[in-house]
Amino acid sequence: MSNLNIEFEEAKILVNKLRNEPDNDTKLKLYAFFKQANVGKCNTPKPGMLDIVARSKWNAWNDLKKMSQDDAKKSYIEFVNKLYSEENPLEKKNPIKEKEKFTDILTSIEFDSIYKIILNRPNKLNALSRNMYSEIAMALKEAEENPKIKICVFTGAGDYFSSGNDLSNYTVQNEDPRDAIKKGCDLVENFINSFINFSKPLVALVNGPAIGICFTVLGLFDLVYCSDKATFYAPFTRSALSPEGCSSYTFPRLMGHLKACEILLFNKKLNAEEALARNLVNEIFPHKEMNILFNKKIEEFSRLNFAVRSLKI
Amino acid sequence: MSNLNIEFEEAKILVNKLRNEPDNDTKLKLYAFFKQANVGKCNTPKPGMLDIVARSKWNAWNDLKKMSQDDAKKSYIEFVNKLYSEENPLEKKNPIKEKEKFTDILTSIEFDSIYKIILNRPNKLNALSRNMYSEIAMALKEAEENPKIKICVFTGAGDYFSSGNDLSNYTVQNEDPRDAIKKGCDLVENFINSFINFSKPLVALVNGPAIGICFTVLGLFDLVYCSDKATFYAPFTRSALSPEGCSSYTFPRLMGHLKACEILLFNKKLNAEEALARNLVNEIFPHKEMNILFNKKIEEFSRLNFAVRSLKI
Amino acid sequence: MSNLNIEFEEAKILVNKLRNEPDNDTKLKLYAFFKQANVGKCNTPKPGMLDIVARSKWNAWNDLKKMSQDDAKKSYIEFVNKLYSEENPLEKKNPIKEKEKFTDILTSIEFDSIYKIILNRPNKLNALSRNMYSEIAMALKEAEENPKIKICVFTGAGDYFSSGNDLSNYTVQNEDPRDAIKKGCDLVENFINSFINFSKPLVALVNGPAIGICFTVLGLFDLVYCSDKATFYAPFTRSALSPEGCSSYTFPRLMGHLKACEILLFNKKLNAEEALARNLVNEIFPHKEMNILFNKKIEEFSRLNFAVRSLKI
Repeated sequence: MSNLNIEFEEAKILVNKLRNEPDNDTKLKLYAFFKQANVGKCNTPKPGMLDIVARSKWNAWNDLKKMSQDDAKKSYIEFVNKLYSEENPLEKKNPIKEKEKFTDILTSIEFDSIYKIILNRPNKLNALSRNMYSEIAMALKEAEENPKIKICVFTGAGDYFSSGNDLSNYTVQNEDPRDAIKKGCDLVENFINSFINFSKPLVALVNGPAIGICFTVLGLFDLVYCSDKATFYAPFTRSALSPEGCSSYTFPRLMGHLKACEILLFNKKLNAEEALARNLVNEIFPHKEMNILFNKKIEEFSRLNFAVRSLKI
Repeated sequence: MSNLNIEFEEAKILVNKLRNEPDNDTKLKLYAFFKQANVGKCNTPKPGMLDIVARSKWNAWNDLKKMSQDDAKKSYIEFVNKLYSEENPLEKKNPIKEKEKFTDILTSIEFDSIYKIILNRPNKLNALSRNMYSEIAMALKEAEENPKIKICVFTGAGDYFSSGNDLSNYTVQNEDPRDAIKKGCDLVENFINSFINFSKPLVALVNGPAIGICFTVLGLFDLVYCSDKATFYAPFTRSALSPEGCSSYTFPRLMGHLKACEILLFNKKLNAEEALARNLVNEIFPHKEMNILFNKKIEEFSRLNFAVRSLKI
Repeated sequence: MSNLNIEFEEAKILVNKLRNEPDNDTKLKLYAFFKQANVGKCNTPKPGMLDIVARSKWNAWNDLKKMSQDDAKKSYIEFVNKLYSEENPLEKKNPIKEKEKFTDILTSIEFDSIYKIILNRPNKLNALSRNMYSEIAMALKEAEENPKIKICVFTGAGDYFSSGNDLSNYTVQNEDPRDAIKKGCDLVENFINSFINFSKPLVALVNGPAIGICFTVLGLFDLVYCSDKATFYAPFTRSALSPEGCSSYTFPRLMGHLKACEILLFNKKLNAEEALARNLVNEIFPHKEMNILFNKKIEEFSRLNFAVRSLKI
């Protein structure tokens, strides 16, 4: 994810932290920058004269029709930061940054009850480094222990959800290979256990290709949304590897063992439609709108109360 | 279900009890009243001159084209009762009525081996009263113990299959709340156990919306048909309830835990097509023909012999 | 399968045993006979002038346009045998034949690592005789014990995959019925156990109707392909039989118990599309091309390495 996009994501989080209801002009401005940033030039028919609210929103958006999407993002970020600074004159300019304890993932709390984890090594296609295995496990622990958190959501920065295990993890660095193997096993075991033991609903937005361990671990989630550009691939038998992430357990239970074998033993790569048909995905979002649609969903979920938190079998 | 519709349903059962093959004129008359009652005005093209049987049936139906559907039902009921009385001069006019032991459900035996239960509080959308929980459990016991019965079938009177638990059940009536809760638990436990322990095939015709407990309990059936107007909805997490009817066990086994979570944790409402795709429904019938098609199916099933009676896992 | 078709299948296997790379003219000839035999008259547009290889292949095929498919098969068989004899002057003409230890099935090893079993009583629609139960169990044992074998594949000769248990097995031949029943049980138990205990991936190509035990046993496979002419039928409750082949266990896990009941209790016959939707089939091949497409798949599989061999649950 480019810096601009990260800052834009952060601004979307920051806007939820405003305590005072903004006035109508401010709301229209926020709306217009947001639509122009996400969709580009206004592309809907002008609402009728009597539909005053819809018409005002349409006008505000349409007024920005010559602004580029990147410029709209910049304006949105600047405007949100200004609103926030006015409410919090003593705070540093970007309060989100202070919360970042991690280097390879971004975390935030949205709608007061949703813990969000973004895999954030887009230049490495979000391949899981040793560091990321630990950071994700730590973030899940934090989400588990915070009583305000109802749900944890995952997504990836950039074009990939994750390209899987980072193969450079296997490079031995002046270490007894037996020690290296032992450490690697402990790391992965701890990572997988943190998903198995997480007691609240886990929701994924698969924003692009999901390969290897970040595909197989989806069977431990409670709800999976994906972009129509997402693909799913686990070519273990090309290299005599065995499937991880409990997928040899979860996949047959999701789609029957015959279709699970096709993926885990015979290397079938799935597109979004195929993953939906195989019960690995709940709903497919058009790529351009996926963040908006996903945010709508999780906002709605933030109002639910979970007496039962998972149906994993 | 209106009285007229109940009597019409009863007449359809009674016609199967006729011992003597009716002559052709009688059969044509029965056919014509039945079609006019169910479909209304004849809406199929006239069969060719040489297709004598089809043409006679078409003529008989078409002759009634000015009769209303309600009048056709009345004529059908009257005619069937007349035929039955001729064969059974000593019996009371309506032999079905004698069997009614219940107030909120209708039960009958069809094709000598099919026990039929109709949820019959249509003015309450078949919401389950405390009384209905008991009556259904008793009816299932009766079906279990009668050695002639091969299969038990369920459907609802009126537009709904069932709107779920009757919320007025929760009104405490001068009772220690702890006693009330204990009684409520026992009632529901007994109700669910009567489905779990029923050893013969259980078949449902979901005639309209199925909500809450009457949706979740479908996972304990062996075959589910539905109207194309049926919907399925279990919004437990709106009120911090947990899913009942063993659905947290059966639903993940039917459709995988991700799609089960969407229904039981995230309140997704399904239409008939979606329920079919999620393995909750076997076949969808067009609403107008659902009773005819369902009767055909159960007549066929009445001729089978079940060495194995259920595949519930 | 006619003798010509069996010899053609054998020639396709034999061609893989050639040790020397054939020259281009020989390859073009093999290609042309093969396409004419499988597809008939050349039916693709002529490739452009600069696509030299594709154009040569197209010309070679098109030159045979007046040859019948049967004659093309004969020419292919003769030509392959000639090439093989040139490389192996001392061997008998048809080395495959020597390997036939069985009378009702054909077995062969393809791509050095794929054990192929063909049910071969096409005039009996591949109904399983007592002899076939034993031969299949013996063949599976052979495939299990040969360390070169990675995968075992099954298909049927002729129009049927298999019409199920041969009912003439039940004719008692001067034997105490209790002994006959005991023997029959042991035979079937041994047969089913040989599938359960087989530790390598089992792949089926269902070439036509699969009825009774050869349908139900598919739940013990790891991958199932079928012809678009395949059908699947298990009418056990017509004769008060219970479902075998572990299907009361495997089918509910593949498609949910409601859809499994429809097949195993209520005799629903599936076509290829329905079997695919119910997770009993992985992919449907157009009937005419099924052998070519299947061979491509298993050639590809022969290059994989299976750390995990089955996901049966």
